[in-house]
This record gives sequence, C-alpha cells and structure tokens, in this order.
Amino acid sequence: MLEQLGKQAKAAAGVLSCAPRALKDAALLAAADALLSQTADILEANALDLENGRQSGMSEALLDRLRLDEKRIAGMAQGMRDVAASADPVGRVLWGETRPNGLQIRKISVPLGVIAVIYEARPNVTADAAALCLKAGNAVILRGGKEAIRSNAAVADCMREAIAAAGLPRDCIQLVQDTSRESARALMTLNGYVDVLIPRGGAGLIRAAVENATVPVIETGTGNCHVYVDKDADLDMAANIVYNAKVSRPSVCNACESLLIHRAVADQAVPLLCGRLREANVEIRGDETVCRLVPDAVPATVEDYAKEFLDYIISVKVVDSLDEAVRHIAQNGTGHSECIVTENYAAAQTFLARVDAAAVYVNASTRFTDGGEFGFGAEIGISTQKLHARGPLGLANLTAEKYIILGSGQIR
Amino acid sequence: MLEQLGKQAKAAAGVLSCAPRALKDAALLAAADALLSQTADILEANALDLENGRQSGMSEALLDRLRLDEKRIAGMAQGMRDVAASADPVGRVLWGETRPNGLQIRKISVPLGVIAVIYEARPNVTADAAALCLKAGNAVILRGGKEAIRSNAAVADCMREAIAAAGLPRDCIQLVQDTSRESARALMTLNGYVDVLIPRGGAGLIRAAVENATVPVIETGTGNCHVYVDKDADLDMAANIVYNAKVSRPSVCNACESLLIHRAVADQAVPLLCGRLREANVEIRGDETVCRLVPDAVPATVEDYAKEFLDYIISVKVVDSLDEAVRHIAQNGTGHSECIVTENYAAAQTFLARVDAAAVYVNASTRFTDGGEFGFGAEIGISTQKLHARGPLGLANLTAEKYIILGSGQIR
Repeated sequence: MLEQLGKQAKAAAGVLSCAPRALKDAALLAAADALLSQTADILEANALDLENGRQSGMSEALLDRLRLDEKRIAGMAQGMRDVAASADPVGRVLWGETRPNGLQIRKISVPLGVIAVIYEARPNVTADAAALCLKAGNAVILRGGKEAIRSNAAVADCMREAIAAAGLPRDCIQLVQDTSRESARALMTLNGYVDVLIPRGGAGLIRAAVENATVPVIETGTGNCHVYVDKDADLDMAANIVYNAKVSRPSVCNACESLLIHRAVADQAVPLLCGRLREANVEIRGDETVCRLVPDAVPATVEDYAKEFLDYIISVKVVDSLDEAVRHIAQNGTGHSECIVTENYAAAQTFLARVDAAAVYVNASTRFTDGGEFGFGAEIGISTQKLHARGPLGLANLTAEKYIILGSGQIR
Repeated sequence: MLEQLGKQAKAAAGVLSCAPRALKDAALLAAADALLSQTADILEANALDLENGRQSGMSEALLDRLRLDEKRIAGMAQGMRDVAASADPVGRVLWGETRPNGLQIRKISVPLGVIAVIYEARPNVTADAAALCLKAGNAVILRGGKEAIRSNAAVADCMREAIAAAGLPRDCIQLVQDTSRESARALMTLNGYVDVLIPRGGAGLIRAAVENATVPVIETGTGNCHVYVDKDADLDMAANIVYNAKVSRPSVCNACESLLIHRAVADQAVPLLCGRLREANVEIRGDETVCRLVPDAVPATVEDYAKEFLDYIISVKVVDSLDEAVRHIAQNGTGHSECIVTENYAAAQTFLARVDAAAVYVNASTRFTDGGEFGFGAEIGISTQKLHARGPLGLANLTAEKYIILGSGQIR
C-alpha cells in the first residue's frame, strides 16, 4: 500500500522538481482559495474528529489543538499565500568556480525529492507542511495522527484537487489514510521512495523515528532549553528574559525548562527570578539552595533536570561556575536553544563557543528560535540534529545540492 | 566496550571543538612527522597483515590495496601536511542578519562532534580520515577491516602519540580493535556518542549501514555512472570521454559503468565507441543492436544495467530518445555521476535539469567527481545521498551549523 504511495510520490516529484516557480505559486494560491471556499466541508470533517475525541476522553488542551474554525482555516490559507510569495529556494547557485582545465563547476540547490512528514494532532500541519514541501519542489507524503484523520483528509483532498486544476500532479501531496503504528513504521523504511523523513511531535515519536527509520531522518523538536544567569548578569534583564522564556508560551519547544544561577548572585537572583515566575503560578523544582530561598519550591529530582515539561513548571539549580553551567547543559540539554545572561564579554564568548546547540543566545529569550523570528518565513520544525540543517527548517533547508559541470571534452 | 570509546571520543571532541587552528595544524604536522619517522614499524605491522592475507588466499588486487611501502607512507604524511595547510572549516560565518528588534543572528560553522568511519582494506584511509576529521574539529572513531588491523593500529597509535605530544587529547583519534561484524553494528547504533557515521566501502557495507544504523549516516560511494551519447554529439569527443571514463581507472566509483547511445547515431557511434573500448580489452555487454554492430559483444541482462562492475566491463544500450536515456538513468543510476555528450543546447539543459545525481556533466568525463579535481582538497568519500552534502565530501562538509544570537535583553 505505502509502496504504491511511494511510487506515485516519486513520479510526481520528477515532474514537480522541474516545475517553474510561476506554476508552483499558482498551485499554492489555488490551494489557498480552495481551503477558503471549502471551509464548511473542512469544518464538518473537523467536527466529527472533535466528537470522536470527546467520546474517547481527549483532554481540553488536545481538543483545542485539534479544533479548526474559520479563523484558523483563514490562517492556513494566508500561510500558503505567504509561502507562494517567498523566493524560490530551488535553482540558486550556491557556489561556482572555473577549474584550471576549463571545467565550469556550479553547485545549485535542487529539491530533496520525496519528503515524508509524520505528525500528531494539529490539522494545520497538513496545510503548512504540504505548502512548504511543494514550494521547494518536493512531493510530500503526510501521515498525521488518527485523532485528526478526517480533518487532515479534508484539507489534503482540497489541496490535491486545487493543485491538479492548476496543472501539477495531484500526487505531489498524498495523505496516508491508515493511521496505525504499522503505517508509520512502514513509512520510516520506505527506502528508494522517501528521501527524507521529518517527524514532528513529541519525544516518543522522534525516538521511534530515530530507532526504526532506515530512510534519512531530520530530528526535530524536543527542547530542554536552559537560561544561565551569570554572576555578572543584569538581574532585572535576567528576570525579564526568564519570565518571557518560561511563561509566554510554556507548551512550545523553545520555552525555557531549566534555570541555572551562579552561586555568587544566588541570594539576590533566586528570590527575584523565582518570585517573578511564582506570580505566573510556575512550579519551582529546585536544589537545596533554591528550596532554602524560595518558600514554596519543591526539591528537584535528577530526572527533573533532564525533562521537557512543556508546562508551568521549571527546574532551578545554583551552579558554582560558568564551567559547571556548560557541563550541566551538555549533560541535560537537547541541543535546541540555550541562553546566557551576562554583561561579561569573556563569559559570553566562552558560553557561545562551548555550548553545543542549534541556537545559543546572549541576553535574549530562547523563544526567538523560530523560522519567522529568524526571518526565514514559515518553518517545518526546529532541527536539533547536526546533519543537514540545524535550527528552524525553512524553505532553503528543504532542498539538496547538485553539482553541474559544463565541459568541452575534458578528460582526466 | 564501544560505549567507553564513545565517551572518550565525546570528551575529546569537547576539547577539540574549541581548539584554535594553530594547535590543530601543529598536531597534524607532528603526526605527519611521526608517520615518516616510524615508517619501519608501520611497514613491519603491514608485513604481518600481508602475510596473513596471503595465507588466507587474498587476491593480488586486494593485497595491493592492503600493501604499504615507503612511498605510500610518504604520501599519507604529505596528505596530512596538505590538510594542515587548508583553511580552517570551523568558525566561518555562513550567514548573518540583524533583525528589526536588534537581535544579531549569525550562522557559523562548527564541528559535527564525533564521526565514526567504517572502512575496508586500505590502511591509508586511517590516516586520511583521521586528518580530515581532526582539522574540522571532530573526534573520530575508526573501524577498519580485519585484513588491515595491524597496519591500522600502527598508523593510529603513531598519530595518537603525536597529537598528544602536540597538546590535543589522544582520544581525538581512536581505532576499534575488535573487527567483528558485531563491533560494526554496535558503532552504527552508538546514539548519544556518534554524531555521524560515514561508511566507506562496497555496496554491502553501505547497505548494512543504511539498514542497521540508528545514528545519522552519510551514504557514500556506489557509482553506476552513465555516459549518454546524444544524437547531436561530437562522436570523436564522445569516444575520448567514454574511453577515459571507463578505462583510466575502472576500479573507482566515478568510472563509467554504462553507455547509452541515441539510435539516430548508433550505426556510426556504436562501432566507433565500442571499438575504442575493445582496444583496452573492455568487455561489451550490449542490447540487440549493440550485439549486431559489435562482433564480440555479449548480450546484457537486466541486472547488467544496474551493476557497478568496477572492472573492464561496460553495459551498452541504444535508446530512442533523450527522454528514454533520462528514464533509464533514473531507474538504474545510483545518483553519483552522469554525463551527456552533446552539441545541442536544449538537450544539455534538459539533461542537467532532469537527471538527479550528485554530479551531472555536459561533455566531460565522469572521472572528475573527486575532491581534488573540484578544488576541495582531500575528501572523505563521495556522498550519494541528498541530506547534508552531496558529491565529494571535503573539510567543509565535515562541519555542522550553529546559530549564535547576540541580544541586549530582547523578549518576545
């Protein structure tokens, strides 16, 4: 079954990879129009998903992620228009040189081919991922969660028809109807058809992909992000940054999960920073010093320091030095976003050099690790691996390279 | 056992990643000197490997790949000096922008971390891979074939001592002593310690890595490379290119394995091109037309067209159109190097756009797909996958990216 989808995707990718920008943009705009004109049908499908979710006891938070309304669908359509308006990431000359023997070598950006995306409850990912992949010249095989299958199918069908009417193969966008665990596993091993797999979701999904995939994977997402408050920090700035990084949106991967504070400023900084967090009802899980300084803090376990809470909870630790902070991050971090707050030049330089993560900040909130905030436009996830691309995955990261060599009969 | 190597590699990588260029270069030059001064010991170890190889019935060709002599060791040392003389691939600013909110975002090149290299009989890979990884700031775990274990150990020990004397951790370079299949499998799943695995060897090794690895892999190597002679080709140029691509070094991955000829010129081109190849005793495996036109050609099977012979054998097929050639390459190629010989602008453009491979040539031998020929210096292999890097993997491809963000208290 999946092999058939793979074959269709590969054939569609062959056509799409050579499609001019105007055709891709027209297809995206047509898909945006179709989403708007078929809003009622999509909402009807979504209502069935929501009803099923309620009956199976889904939490209010999950129901909210699953829920579509006119505004959210309009947002998806606008996202597609924004992608259409972006520059074409395909066909850029990335490097070029004429060799002494006259060979003209150029490295150009080309589509990756077929991208598989496995994701969980949010139906807007269907539209966002399909639009980004299509703009970068890639066929996409989407495999969403079972909770959202009707909504995803409605969105995908609507887009497929629209791009076909615009002149692109319908199979540039395909949705796996089977939402069993087996279908995800099969997609992870669809070698020969899938060029890249991008899992988008929780730690369990990412781990399953890394362990089971035989196709190349881009790991995304989990963020145990730290803010380290140095002995030379501006503590008011630190309080603002920590509050923003933790409280502005606790459920996302670039939110701060762990706070490290230099012992030299602990007596002043711990009550100040934790006090601000307590105002927003953030639970403080701290070490001995923190529990002594913050009345309602609870003792942190070793596991707490390695945990991505995605909630109004933070682990707090007092460290003896910058070096201890760096080592703690190396041991507990997930390579997502890490921040130092300091006014000290050498401390900033050391932290930037030694902390190994997709994004390393001096004096700014970790919440900025985001395709939009970096100026890349929409993103398909945040890569936390080192191969291929790291950080927000924008359109440019959905391409591969190819060398073209123009000769006049050269032999070696 | 391997976990211990992994831990040591990770610790060494932490130090090496921040080492300045001068220190890395000094270590490489010291290692080159050590290889030269310890040539006798290395040759003694190699003699034992050769003796074992002879007793176990190794072919002369394989014995030659295994054999070291003073000249080859001097070549390895010179390779290290060349790597030392190359620019540092770490710390380059790849992109940068100041955002409207004042955040200064820079994307810089950083080491990948720990690279594992699994390879087969050639002991020179030990020196080459270690030097490239070290220059790019990466610790390396080398796992060579059992045939070369004594030679590899002698080379690795010599380098380890030299870099330690120069001030870098010895464990920047480690060799797996256990050459069992199990040790290779264990290295492929050493998540948390190995950032990238590069298998260097035959199709069997590459397949085993793709199927079994849970760490990220860069596929290298297999090259079923085609030369397509268009109806508008300069046939003398075509004959030179085909002869060079096939005969100059048949055992390498960028050698031509399959020749496609447009039917419109077949009557003239097939005898001309195959005649040249027959002069070098290349066996011709052809389709009906080829067998009719070339007296001593043998019929090609379907498998022959998909095969990387690495020998004085070539498959030859007459095609009805450029389109058929492109489709044949899509079906049988391995995404390595593909060439069209033509004087026709539109045919060249179509071939360049539609053929999906690391290197696509117009009017030049496929043998140029090589780090040195592309001007990149030494290479660690030719990537045939799309993720991360494609084509010759030079120093720059042994790095990852990292965003550093300099703020002044920005919150979102």
